[in-house]
Amino acid sequence: MTNDMIISAQNIADHYAVLNRIGALGDHPGAGFHRPAYSDEETAVMIYFETQAKRAGLKARWDAVGNLFIETTDTQEQWMECGSHVDTVPDGGNFDGLAGVVAGFTAIAALHHKPRSHGLRLRIWRGEESASFGITSIGASAALGTLAASALDKRHAGRSLRQAMQEQGADPDIIASAQRTIEQDEIDQISAHLELHIEQGIVLEKKGVDIGIVTGIRAASRDWISLHGEFDHSGATPMGNEYRRDANLALAHILVNLDALFLSHQEEDCGLDLIQTIGHINSNAEKNSHDSELYSNAISKVSGYAYFSYELRSCNDILRNRYKQKAIRVIQETATAFGVSARIESISNSSAVKALDQSLQTDMQRICDTLGYSYSTLPSGAWHDAALMAQQSHSNQTPLPVGMIFIPCQHGKSHSPEEFASNEQIAKGTSLLATLMQQGLSK
Amino acid sequence: MTNDMIISAQNIADHYAVLNRIGALGDHPGAGFHRPAYSDEETAVMIYFETQAKRAGLKARWDAVGNLFIETTDTQEQWMECGSHVDTVPDGGNFDGLAGVVAGFTAIAALHHKPRSHGLRLRIWRGEESASFGITSIGASAALGTLAASALDKRHAGRSLRQAMQEQGADPDIIASAQRTIEQDEIDQISAHLELHIEQGIVLEKKGVDIGIVTGIRAASRDWISLHGEFDHSGATPMGNEYRRDANLALAHILVNLDALFLSHQEEDCGLDLIQTIGHINSNAEKNSHDSELYSNAISKVSGYAYFSYELRSCNDILRNRYKQKAIRVIQETATAFGVSARIESISNSSAVKALDQSLQTDMQRICDTLGYSYSTLPSGAWHDAALMAQQSHSNQTPLPVGMIFIPCQHGKSHSPEEFASNEQIAKGTSLLATLMQQGLSK
Repeated sequence: MTNDMIISAQNIADHYAVLNRIGALGDHPGAGFHRPAYSDEETAVMIYFETQAKRAGLKARWDAVGNLFIETTDTQEQWMECGSHVDTVPDGGNFDGLAGVVAGFTAIAALHHKPRSHGLRLRIWRGEESASFGITSIGASAALGTLAASALDKRHAGRSLRQAMQEQGADPDIIASAQRTIEQDEIDQISAHLELHIEQGIVLEKKGVDIGIVTGIRAASRDWISLHGEFDHSGATPMGNEYRRDANLALAHILVNLDALFLSHQEEDCGLDLIQTIGHINSNAEKNSHDSELYSNAISKVSGYAYFSYELRSCNDILRNRYKQKAIRVIQETATAFGVSARIESISNSSAVKALDQSLQTDMQRICDTLGYSYSTLPSGAWHDAALMAQQSHSNQTPLPVGMIFIPCQHGKSHSPEEFASNEQIAKGTSLLATLMQQGLSK
Repeated sequence: MTNDMIISAQNIADHYAVLNRIGALGDHPGAGFHRPAYSDEETAVMIYFETQAKRAGLKARWDAVGNLFIETTDTQEQWMECGSHVDTVPDGGNFDGLAGVVAGFTAIAALHHKPRSHGLRLRIWRGEESASFGITSIGASAALGTLAASALDKRHAGRSLRQAMQEQGADPDIIASAQRTIEQDEIDQISAHLELHIEQGIVLEKKGVDIGIVTGIRAASRDWISLHGEFDHSGATPMGNEYRRDANLALAHILVNLDALFLSHQEEDCGLDLIQTIGHINSNAEKNSHDSELYSNAISKVSGYAYFSYELRSCNDILRNRYKQKAIRVIQETATAFGVSARIESISNSSAVKALDQSLQTDMQRICDTLGYSYSTLPSGAWHDAALMAQQSHSNQTPLPVGMIFIPCQHGKSHSPEEFASNEQIAKGTSLLATLMQQGLSK
């Protein structure tokens, strides 16, 4: 095929030479990254791409909630676009999100001056990671008008989301007034939306393939569970639930019972795509900074208060919700058995994408074959901004076609300083992305 | 009996009218107290008693490690003394420790001008609570030369113990050079050492008695257990120990297994006086302020790090140590099963007092009978400074006679803002204490 776009590893390396220095937690190799949502570090990376875009003769525009959109300057009626994010979890890596932005920018810069029947666009979304404010895809959902106004009061590092947005020049009132920055007209002009991302799992590396063609996207429900027992003197209060209302002990039993629920569920409903994670036990910096009850615990006290985060991920919302009902019963019943009260506070509840656009998946397979790349199809275990675009429809009620390209990452590691994908691996994914964006949708 | 000393509730109330305002966490009734070891708040209460002592014509002297000793001015060769502390746990009450100091001061002030064959002394110890620096009875053990120099590096609220001592005008070098402030000569002149304390349990209230005569004192071993697993992306890392090294999940299973160990132990060895408490899970403010690994946990990560405190209390050191060996095996084996490593760091390891002085207990019973107070004998579930005095001996190798008086506290609550003992209850205990101090040791 004549219009295959081959992107070199050097193209990728040139960007990373700069980007490895923004938000790094140290200057030694292997240092982690921390670029929170709506932080100076996140903005710095976005400004790097704005500068590069202008240098390449591309248009760069910020939307009202602080996302950055980079576009070709032609005035086509149809657009092929891609997107990703540049924020990271605390002590995370520099590939989750950023690899997709580097790939998208490199692809558009390479295609810019080539003949096309459509415009090209890269969306650099704010705050995809939930680690900062407890909400996923803040920038994308704000742009699409699906972020609840209550999100503005969520706090990270001593600031509300409202304050953090204002500090980065974004307008929280868009969210407060349920407006959107990407109107339906703009959605109607999008032929397809693509996202390249590292797999964040070990499937592709184990299979030894170059590319993962993503079939669906898991979404998460996330809750804070807080347990209120009673503080008592540890030496003088006898053991046993008759005397003690021990929040820590209740917490341990709850987690073990949830583990047992998961295992029994796996047996009776094998094939259910489900992941259950307790990421936090009393370890959220923002909560701890203003939740003085936690620090009423002491070595010499029966514990009166504890909390944990509870995350469920699945490609199938219905099965996930059914399981969650059982899990909540386990939490409540176990807490009650220890004389402890359990409060459940929803953090977020995203809808999964059961199936991404089939035609885009077929196109990707065909291009991989012509480029000589090995590939595998798989669902995405992690959430991605593309999932929100997949929930958009054209005015004629047809869903917006969305596709995702995975590249392998070393040992399947992600959300950790060990996260790594080579320039060669990113370049292959970028070549696939660029070829697809150049060709446009085949159907 | 002619020399029974009846102390009125008003005497107690007068002191509390001032003392309820030092270190209170709010000015509403029911607000908790926080007076850490070697803090301004602790010193303020001690200065209150220094002032009261001088006003009453008593001698007040600070020892080199910051304890305050209040004495009659006569020059007797023998002394009847009592002691207690004025620090509190975070969000604690105003009776644990302080009630004993108010009682001791009130008793000595009432006896001061009466004829006696011995001097009277009150020891106001620093930092009995382990909650600040993780060590019990800092002041008493420093005064007796039994505090390890390594204690000086323990930290609380951003300071080392060394710094906190210096800020309160105390000399940490006494500890560093293993000196003592109470020499053997002074010990030899003590006829008996007494401590009045709230029970911190519900036994006396349930029995409806005025006084508890304490038979022995439980001591604690305290350890930090830290668990190191591996941080991974929660969505893309499959469930199961094959893929995840989940510190939070290991912690939950360890706590539940320790709970099972305790229950099985109770069955096979009923009668063993033992209490097991996990007071902290990731909830120690000092550790969290400099342990950045904890805050690498996130909702969307498999947990890579967690810690908890592990406390065992018993009146019987041998049985406690035997049980602890089994517990450590449970911790290590459970952690290993989850691919997590467990590190155990000793915080403190105190020796229990199996039996307090029998003759003092007999004297107390006799005095209660003559005063018309109901009483019960019981071991102390909690640690007290008196336990350290009970480990001292006269030069002729006989143990220093030590006795403890308990008074009931409401609902058995302690180490909590709900902690409460009435002025009447404290006054009864004080009358017993004063009578005993007046009479001297009967044997």
